[in-house]
Parts: sequence; structure tokens; C-alpha cells
Amino acid sequence: MNVDGKDIRTIWLDNDERIVKIIDQRKLPHEFILVDLKTVDDAIKAIKDMYVRGAPLIGATGAYGMYLATLNAPDNQIDPGYLKKEADRLKAARPTAVNLAWGVNKVLTAIVNVSNPEKIVSLARETAGAITEQEVDNCRKIGQHGLSLIEKLSGSKGGQTVNILTHCNAGWLACIEHGTATAPIYAAFDHGIDIHVWVDETRPLNQGTRLTAWELGKHGVKHTIITDNAGGYLMQHAMVDIVIVGTDRTAVSGDVANKIGTYLKALAAWDNRVPFYVALPSSTFDWNIRDGVNDIPIERRDPAEIKYVYGLDKDRTTNVLICPETSPAANFAFDVTPAKYVTGFITERGICKATEDDIRSLFPDKGR
Amino acid sequence: MNVDGKDIRTIWLDNDERIVKIIDQRKLPHEFILVDLKTVDDAIKAIKDMYVRGAPLIGATGAYGMYLATLNAPDNQIDPGYLKKEADRLKAARPTAVNLAWGVNKVLTAIVNVSNPEKIVSLARETAGAITEQEVDNCRKIGQHGLSLIEKLSGSKGGQTVNILTHCNAGWLACIEHGTATAPIYAAFDHGIDIHVWVDETRPLNQGTRLTAWELGKHGVKHTIITDNAGGYLMQHAMVDIVIVGTDRTAVSGDVANKIGTYLKALAAWDNRVPFYVALPSSTFDWNIRDGVNDIPIERRDPAEIKYVYGLDKDRTTNVLICPETSPAANFAFDVTPAKYVTGFITERGICKATEDDIRSLFPDKGR
Repeated sequence: MNVDGKDIRTIWLDNDERIVKIIDQRKLPHEFILVDLKTVDDAIKAIKDMYVRGAPLIGATGAYGMYLATLNAPDNQIDPGYLKKEADRLKAARPTAVNLAWGVNKVLTAIVNVSNPEKIVSLARETAGAITEQEVDNCRKIGQHGLSLIEKLSGSKGGQTVNILTHCNAGWLACIEHGTATAPIYAAFDHGIDIHVWVDETRPLNQGTRLTAWELGKHGVKHTIITDNAGGYLMQHAMVDIVIVGTDRTAVSGDVANKIGTYLKALAAWDNRVPFYVALPSSTFDWNIRDGVNDIPIERRDPAEIKYVYGLDKDRTTNVLICPETSPAANFAFDVTPAKYVTGFITERGICKATEDDIRSLFPDKGR
Repeated sequence: MNVDGKDIRTIWLDNDERIVKIIDQRKLPHEFILVDLKTVDDAIKAIKDMYVRGAPLIGATGAYGMYLATLNAPDNQIDPGYLKKEADRLKAARPTAVNLAWGVNKVLTAIVNVSNPEKIVSLARETAGAITEQEVDNCRKIGQHGLSLIEKLSGSKGGQTVNILTHCNAGWLACIEHGTATAPIYAAFDHGIDIHVWVDETRPLNQGTRLTAWELGKHGVKHTIITDNAGGYLMQHAMVDIVIVGTDRTAVSGDVANKIGTYLKALAAWDNRVPFYVALPSSTFDWNIRDGVNDIPIERRDPAEIKYVYGLDKDRTTNVLICPETSPAANFAFDVTPAKYVTGFITERGICKATEDDIRSLFPDKGR
């Protein structure tokens, strides 16, 4: 995607193919820093400490993490036991992200029964690369399918601005290119449809304020930052035509795990009859879980993420304490929106309702 | 209330009776600064720039603002035209706060037809003082009525911790003493009931993080700070027994204007069958408005309040930029929760349902 005239992705193999390059997204929008991943521990740290975030990007980073595992086996002994152990370590870095396990397992499956070490390395690299290209293609297709929804809204408003609300960052920064929730937005923008995006701040880590606002701004998309508290008011006053969010894991029943606060926006959309869509590649579906609210594990993160806010103080970035130092804080990272509040899913194969039957009719190849 | 062993209120007349004392609440919890109000402009600035906030405290500050007007008439000419003009200026400082107009008008009515200047000054001072004492008494009564709800919850849980969620600061800092939403909390705490408070951060100005956490901590009440996004998750998982919030203006129909984001919590409470109560003195009822969502004016504040966050950087307070400098932000300060999502009101006269009939049955003296 476009960053100050340069075409850039969120993850790529360096010219030195022993190095995987990523953006340290924790520093955006104030600093744009590239980081080298050379080991599995580097990849785990990047995932766990959220240098990278977003389901598809976490999946790709997990896949490249397995590639790095093949490069760094002790005594060059790449045996199945070692590979499975490294895969488990990678998968534990963020338990809620189903794409992580998916990406890691895809590489593991491709290499675990191969005996030639060189072949293992090249297969791991190719599989990680293929996963990455597949995610790019999925996002492009999500954009095309979602575009039809925005075109229809634009038509029904006689070409007046279509107002889209999004939560967190399910943008290209969360993927490789295009994004998931933002793919229809970029597609609509590129089609010349008049759109405007309400960007939820997304506390505690401010992915909306820091990342979504940044990438929309760089692309030239009209947008306005709002607090996470504001969406209900906007919807009550017909200032939102559609909500589009991403997801970290979606149960086959249609229950959607996404950044904490998504559920509250879904309730407001439901109460005000605003369509609420979730954009996702099919790799984000969990085909085994039906009760999303009770069965999707929810990560509890460091309270310091709430008590301190990252920002720019004149020309220096810092973390400021925003509460009494002695007050405890609790940091639940995700919530689950019950399927009944979801209007539909925008996938790489098209749009479907949030029911198991409708999801499975788009993906008949996924066995029950 | 107790602050490090000192008993303190949020507003009082100095020994030099030409000076009204307040706390500059913008600086809490990192700095505890007292400010002198000597003129109407001082009072307007304190209200508009939120040195003071919270319906009852704004009302008391408006009332004392009228007292300051009587002290500062040009050429000591305290005529009705001057008093009305100053009253209008005070009332315009925060248009959503019905208590402001109520407090200002109460003093204005008491003095506008009096001719003796000394009598005007003393009447204004006495009326402002009486309003203040009445608010303290109202809050104390709200606490006693709300206590019964918490006692019942504690009983039904066999004495296990009662978890209370609150949004913004409707604490003693928003009032004179006790608070509105916090009055039942302090009453329950003083009764030895095991309680724990989930404190919504309350972006953009973080009244929860800065003020509610601070005052609960000083009083020794168990509490945990959460982001505004987290309440839905907590309610889905039975971690909230009751929501109690304040209000800046409540329509006689039961529609509740309160800090932006309150509506989202009410929706989550409704969806998870958690009782959602609003604590208020009757001065906060607007007896003339029925369609709260469309007829209560909602203040739009400076976008800088969203783009910059106030906090402590080591030993120095500062405001840090949390988004791209070029991204616009929109700052809607309140939303309106429709009456159908409100379980009930806790008032100085008792508890009632969120219907006009039930409200009026508690306040038959308020004419239709």
C-alpha cells in the first residue's frame, strides 16, 4: 500500500533470505520503524508484544516463524519433535488468534514428514510465501464483495457521502495489503464513491487512532477519529450508514470474537437498524466452535496497557500515566458479539448471513 | 469527603467571603490544586473549561457565579438587566447541564426584584449556600435509597462481593459530598457490605480513570479501572451485578442524557439482564422534555480533547498526541439512553421506574 509514495507491505522476505522484515506497529503513527526477524523468538516477541497484530498478519508471521525455525534448528537437526515444539511455542504467543495456529500448522504440515533439511527450509519458505499471497488475494476479493454493499448504500443516498464506522484496525496494517474491514473502504474509494470513515479510537492500545487513522490518511480517505463511546450517539442520529469490523476468530455459528468493544457497537447498530458487517478471510472461521461467547478463549493482557497511554510529547514519544498509580486495572482484550447482532460476513467468496447454514453454503469444502 | 485525612468539599466560600474556592479537577489525580473564583468570568471559565464538572457541582458553581455577579456589578449598579445578562452568560457555559440553569435561575429569582444592593448580595450568598446544602442532603438521601438495592444484591449473593459498574464520575467530585452514582457505593461501603467497583475510563477526558478511581481509592473502596470497551464483556460473563451512573439531564419521560458512552453500557446491561440504575437529584429532571434523544441539546467539544491525552510523564504532567496530527476528530460529549433501557432512578425521594407516571408519582409537586 501507499506510504509517502512507496509501495509497502506489512511483512516480506529481505534480500538476505534469512531475514523476515516487519513494521514495528507499536510506534506508529509517530515513528515508522522496520524490524528484522531472524529467530523463532523474534517472531514470538513480534506477535506477543504486538509489533504485528491483526489476524491475517499474525497468521503470516506465524508461518514465517516456522520458516525461521527451519533455519535455526540446533545442530541443524530439523526433526519432527523440534518442529512441533517450535510450532507450539509460536501458537501460544496469542491464544485468541485462530489464524496464528492456522498459519503455523499449514507450514508444519507441509514440512513435518520431509527428511531432506534443504527441502524443509525451501518448502517452509514457499509455504509461508504462498500463505502471504493467498491472504493478499483474499483481502482483494473481500474488497470487491464489500464494494457492492457500499455502492448500494451510495445509490440509495443519491450519491451523498456514505458514512462507515470501524473499530480497531482491520486495515492493511493488520493484513498484508488491502485489509479486511478496510478492503471494501479502499475499493469504494478507488471507485470514486464518496465515503467517510468514523474511526473508533479503540482503547487501550488505540489501534484506531494510531493505525487506522494513519493508513486512511496516507491513502487519502476522508475520516474522523471518535472515542469508543461515541458510536451509539452517531447511530442514534443517522450518522452511520454501515459498520464494518474485522475479527480475530469467528465461530461457525456466527459468533464474532474481535477487539474489546466490538460487541457494544453491534448492540448500538442493532438498536438503530444500522447494518453491521464483519469482513474476514475464511481462515478466520473456527469450524469447531459454536458457542463463541463461552468457548472462544479471551486473552487478558497487562494492566499497564490501560494505565499508560503512548503518545508524542512535542518531539519525543513517551508513555504517560493516566490514573492514580495505586489503582488496579483489568485488561480484557477481546469480546464476542453474538451472531444475532451480526448482519453478515464479507468473505473472499462473497457475502453471507451470520448463521452456520449460510456460512457453510459459501464454504461447502469445510467438512462438518 | 476524606482526602488524606482532611475533610473536604468540592466548593466552598473562603474565609474572605468575596472568594469562592474550588478544586481544579482537570489536574487530578496527579495534582491537587485549589482555585479562587472572584468574578463571573472566573465561574464561567471554571464551568466551561471543566475545572468543575458534574451536574450538582455545576449547579452550585452557577449559583455562586450569580453571587459573584452581585459583588462585581459595574459602578455597583445591580439592576435586573445586569443580573439577567450575567445569568444568561453563566447558563451558556455548558448548554447540556440542566442543573446549571436551575442553580443560576434559583439565585436570580431570589434577587432580581430586590432593590437594596446589600440585601441582594447577602440573599445571593445565602441562596447559593442553601442550594449547596440541599445538594449535599439530596446526595445523602440518594445514598440511603440506593443502599437498599446493593443490600438486596449482597443478600441474594450470600454476602459475596457485589460488583458495581459506573461510567464517568458521578462521585462526590461531581457533587459537593457523597456523589450521586457513588452515594449508594459509599453508603454500602460504610455499612460494611463487600463491594467492588468497575470504573469505566470514560474517554475522552478520563473522568473515571482520573476522578472516580482517585476518590474511591482515597475512601478505601475496592475498584478496578477498565476501558470503556470492556463493560459488555464483563456483563456477558456475569461479572457485573448492577450498573449505577449519573446524569446531566433526564427527560420527564425517563430518557437519560449522560456522558457519551452511557447508552452503550445500558444496551449491554439490557442484553444481559443486568439492572441499570441512574442516580440523580430531582433538580436534574427536565420536566419539559419528553423526547430526550432528539430534544436534549448535545454539546460538541474541542477535538483536541480526543487527540491529546493528559497524564504523568515521570514527575511532570503533560498532554501527549495519540494520533496523526493531520487526522480530524469529533468530540460529542453526551449521549441519551432511551428510557426503555433504564431499570430505574435513584432519587432523594426514593426509587422509581423510568416512566413519566412513576417519576411524577415521586414528585407530585412538579406541575405538568
